[in-house]
Amino acid sequence: MAPSPYREKLRESALSIACRIIEAEGLEAVQARRIAKEADCAVGSLYNVYGDIDGLIVAANSRTLARLGEILNSAAATFPAATTRERLLTLALVYARFAAENHHAWDAVFRHRRADDTPVPAGYLEDQGRLLALIEDVIAPRYPNAPERARVARAMFGAVHGIVSLAVDNRLGGALRAELEAQLSFIVDLIDRGLAPPRR
Amino acid sequence: MAPSPYREKLRESALSIACRIIEAEGLEAVQARRIAKEADCAVGSLYNVYGDIDGLIVAANSRTLARLGEILNSAAATFPAATTRERLLTLALVYARFAAENHHAWDAVFRHRRADDTPVPAGYLEDQGRLLALIEDVIAPRYPNAPERARVARAMFGAVHGIVSLAVDNRLGGALRAELEAQLSFIVDLIDRGLAPPRR
Repeated sequence: MAPSPYREKLRESALSIACRIIEAEGLEAVQARRIAKEADCAVGSLYNVYGDIDGLIVAANSRTLARLGEILNSAAATFPAATTRERLLTLALVYARFAAENHHAWDAVFRHRRADDTPVPAGYLEDQGRLLALIEDVIAPRYPNAPERARVARAMFGAVHGIVSLAVDNRLGGALRAELEAQLSFIVDLIDRGLAPPRR
Repeated sequence: MAPSPYREKLRESALSIACRIIEAEGLEAVQARRIAKEADCAVGSLYNVYGDIDGLIVAANSRTLARLGEILNSAAATFPAATTRERLLTLALVYARFAAENHHAWDAVFRHRRADDTPVPAGYLEDQGRLLALIEDVIAPRYPNAPERARVARAMFGAVHGIVSLAVDNRLGGALRAELEAQLSFIVDLIDRGLAPPRR
C-alpha cells in the first residue's frame, strides 16, 4: 500500500499519543481503544497502520531509544580530552539520569513483552546496536577484535543497566542518586582497572 | 484476628495456585477471580488473607527468592576450596541458570510493581539482603568495612543481574547460554582483577 497523507498523519499522531501516555502513566496505560479515541480514528485504522498495539509500543520505545541516543551522543562529544574511565563513567551517569528522569518511558523499553514466540524486531536490535557502538568506540583501542569488542560492550552495558534497574525499581528516594552514582562509579572503576591494556 | 485453620489452609492453597500460574503463564495471568475460583473461595476471603492481589504476588515472589536462596546456598557449600573468582563465577552462573529455567517466576520478582507510592515490603528487602549476604561473604576479606562491603555486593549483583536480564529478555535462543556465560565470565574476571586486594 502506498503511503497516504492520512495514513502518515495517523501514524504520527498515534505515536505521539502513545508516547505521552507512556510518559505520564506507564506502559500498562496504553490501550488501542483509548488511543483511537484520542486520535479520532477507528481501532481498525490504528491496527491497519501499526499491525497491533505491540507494533505501536515498539515504535514508541524506538523513539525513547532515539532520545537516549541523542543525549548519550552529546555527552560523547566531550570525550576527546577524557580518559577511558571518565568516558565510561560519563556514559553510565548519563544513562542513569535518563532512566530516573524518564522512568516510565525507559521502563517501557525493557518491560514490554510480545507473545513468547515473537522475535525481537530487527529495528529494535539496530537501536540497541547504535547505543552499544558508543561503548565500543570507547574500548576500541583495547579490543581490536570486533566480536570480542561487541561482547565486552554488551557485558558492560548489562552491568550498568542492572545497577540502574535495581536502584530505580527499589525507589530508594532521596538516597537514590548518591547511592546509585557511588555504585556506578565503583563498577566503572573495577571495569577500568580490569580492562585489557591498550594495544600499540 | 487469631489464625484459624481455614485461614491458614486458604493462605497456603492460594499461594500454591498463584505460584503455579506464574510459573506456567507469567505474572500477568495472576487474577484474583481466577485464584478464588481455583481455591474454591470467595474473592473477599482471598483479600481478607492477603490484603489485595499484590500481597499474594509478593508472597509468591518471596517463595521464588527462597528457592533461589536454597540453590545458591547449596552452590556456596562447595566454596571452601575455591578462589574468589571461582566463587563469584559460580554464584553468577547459578543465578543465570535459575533465571533461564524459571523464567516466569524470576521475571515476576523484578516485573511486579505496586502503586507508585507503596514502599517495597520489608520482607522483600530482607529476602534481598539474605541473597546479597552470599556475595558479601565472598568479598568480606577484601572489604572489612560493612557499609562499603554492602555497596560493593549490591553493585556486583546489579552487574550480573543486568547481563542476565538482557540476555534472557532478548531471547537469543540457542546462542543464549554460551553468550551469556561468556559475558558473565568476562565481567567476573574484570571484577576479580579490579577488586581491592585482601587485607591482612
